[in-house]
Amino acid sequence: MYTLRSLAAALVLAGSVSTVHAWEALPTEVPAPADNPTTAEKVALGKMLYHDPRLSSTGTVSCASCHNTMLGGEDNRPNSMGVNGQTGGRSAPTVWNSAFNLVQFWDGRAASLEEQAAGPVTNPIEMGMKNWDDVVARLKTIEGYQAAFTAAFGPDSISKDSATKAIAAYERTLITPNSAYDHYVGGNQNALTEQQLRGMEKMAELGCTGCHSGPAFNGPGLLQKFPMHSNQYFEAQYHFSQDLGVAEVSKKAEDQHLFKVPTLRNIALTAPYMHNGSVKTLDAAVKIMGKLQLDKDLSKEEVADIVAFLNALTGPFPKQDMPTLPGTPGKAFN
Amino acid sequence: MYTLRSLAAALVLAGSVSTVHAWEALPTEVPAPADNPTTAEKVALGKMLYHDPRLSSTGTVSCASCHNTMLGGEDNRPNSMGVNGQTGGRSAPTVWNSAFNLVQFWDGRAASLEEQAAGPVTNPIEMGMKNWDDVVARLKTIEGYQAAFTAAFGPDSISKDSATKAIAAYERTLITPNSAYDHYVGGNQNALTEQQLRGMEKMAELGCTGCHSGPAFNGPGLLQKFPMHSNQYFEAQYHFSQDLGVAEVSKKAEDQHLFKVPTLRNIALTAPYMHNGSVKTLDAAVKIMGKLQLDKDLSKEEVADIVAFLNALTGPFPKQDMPTLPGTPGKAFN
Repeated sequence: MYTLRSLAAALVLAGSVSTVHAWEALPTEVPAPADNPTTAEKVALGKMLYHDPRLSSTGTVSCASCHNTMLGGEDNRPNSMGVNGQTGGRSAPTVWNSAFNLVQFWDGRAASLEEQAAGPVTNPIEMGMKNWDDVVARLKTIEGYQAAFTAAFGPDSISKDSATKAIAAYERTLITPNSAYDHYVGGNQNALTEQQLRGMEKMAELGCTGCHSGPAFNGPGLLQKFPMHSNQYFEAQYHFSQDLGVAEVSKKAEDQHLFKVPTLRNIALTAPYMHNGSVKTLDAAVKIMGKLQLDKDLSKEEVADIVAFLNALTGPFPKQDMPTLPGTPGKAFN
Repeated sequence: MYTLRSLAAALVLAGSVSTVHAWEALPTEVPAPADNPTTAEKVALGKMLYHDPRLSSTGTVSCASCHNTMLGGEDNRPNSMGVNGQTGGRSAPTVWNSAFNLVQFWDGRAASLEEQAAGPVTNPIEMGMKNWDDVVARLKTIEGYQAAFTAAFGPDSISKDSATKAIAAYERTLITPNSAYDHYVGGNQNALTEQQLRGMEKMAELGCTGCHSGPAFNGPGLLQKFPMHSNQYFEAQYHFSQDLGVAEVSKKAEDQHLFKVPTLRNIALTAPYMHNGSVKTLDAAVKIMGKLQLDKDLSKEEVADIVAFLNALTGPFPKQDMPTLPGTPGKAFN
């Protein structure tokens, strides 16, 4: 993954962006990796696992607790609350359209949804399980899971590998390809308002699309430096630079403040903003990004137009049945 | 409610129970109170509110966190975990069929689902909101809720009263009238196994049905003393008597150790057991109830038969759509 850093850097240096921008609709399906073809059985199992708080040490935190598909795919908190009320320093990214991310986590440390799904379960401040052996042992005590894993992966298949594959398969169904923006790109000239169209054009003109382009508005680069331009006023208020981004993992100076470029889809529903969740409103987030990334002071009107456009990237969310989680008959989960 | 205590006490004193017991199926609908008739709009709104973690101070705990309808209607924990990882002393009762409870909470301090729904939201160790004015103010900032309340209760109707009525209306849909037991009572002689039939007869013969009878196995009395017979061995292990039950609220000596009689429906899915969640398995719970309430030492076979019967009181759970919670566009929930 880190080999792509130079590509990201090159894109930053490219600087000016043409206003003739190729606007792309979201695909209506996500291609699955060769070693994890999507099946209905995997998706059904993954949906159960995703919503099951018994994947956490306390039995209180599921994937959905912080990445809530009943909401905008996250928790509307500056940072999430894991087991026993613990909090970390980063804001939960939305699970909606995460299948279109080229890397996962704010620091891009997972290359796939499968790899990502393994992480929070054993993170001590997130779901707090000691290790995946304990997760697998617990799942094996739940009869209904034995049946569901058998249907998806064959007999005696409960493992970290199959569990994370199922969760990833489910996440590949969590996409929102029918936003007003998609309808517009698809040819419906009336799908966007005048103001939204001004905001859309402004995004390209200012250069926002330099990093936020493609169907999910999260590429073409994988990682990006943030902030690009230091600003003491914003730093004092939001402490963006305290988090070293990729360097927190790699410990390399050249990786400092590199972050995954997040999707802009459904962003109107995922306040508060930025990697540390320090910015409360979308208006403020747009203004700050203009200054810190493009060194531009956006006018009130420009901000309002862009925010109007960003609202056109919202949902709708596919209807979901609520999963019935297999019970642990006659005994507590742990 | 406390005027009914004498009735409960009288039923305890009645003592011996005929084995000719009237077995009743669960009604397929719950009658609604005159001031809160069930409507589809109220149920839809109530389902949203029930699943919305923004009804808690931290935005992390919804009604469903502790009373999870994807599971057996509770959380499989000894006691629940509220905001900031706090825990209390009692085990969350199941929401399934709670509409058939004659009183709510382990100490029966709420007379209706509507009254119950108001409690946890402002309980400092549960959902932690300061007061309902804050809840109402927060709901009013969420446009989608304004529309949903208008549909259910008319314009400008967001209030504690309407919110708790909607939640109660939703809860009246959370019933499980199609268990194997119900099919048996409905005339299907093959719905129960031989062992389950033995357990069923044993329940009446031993006197379990003295307190656990009626369609939801939670009456006819509202409150019951637990433990009835003191037992140092069990007390040392499970500390049942540390919780004074109704007396924790009323502060009256005669209310000590009185508790609401819980439903036995779906009990196979709601481990661990008892008001303090101290008993891990259903087998142990049955044995302990026999000794502490009926002063009888149940044999291993009797326990197994009763547990087999109790498993016939499980689900199935009605299919539910996952609600889409109205977003808080462009800003954090608090």
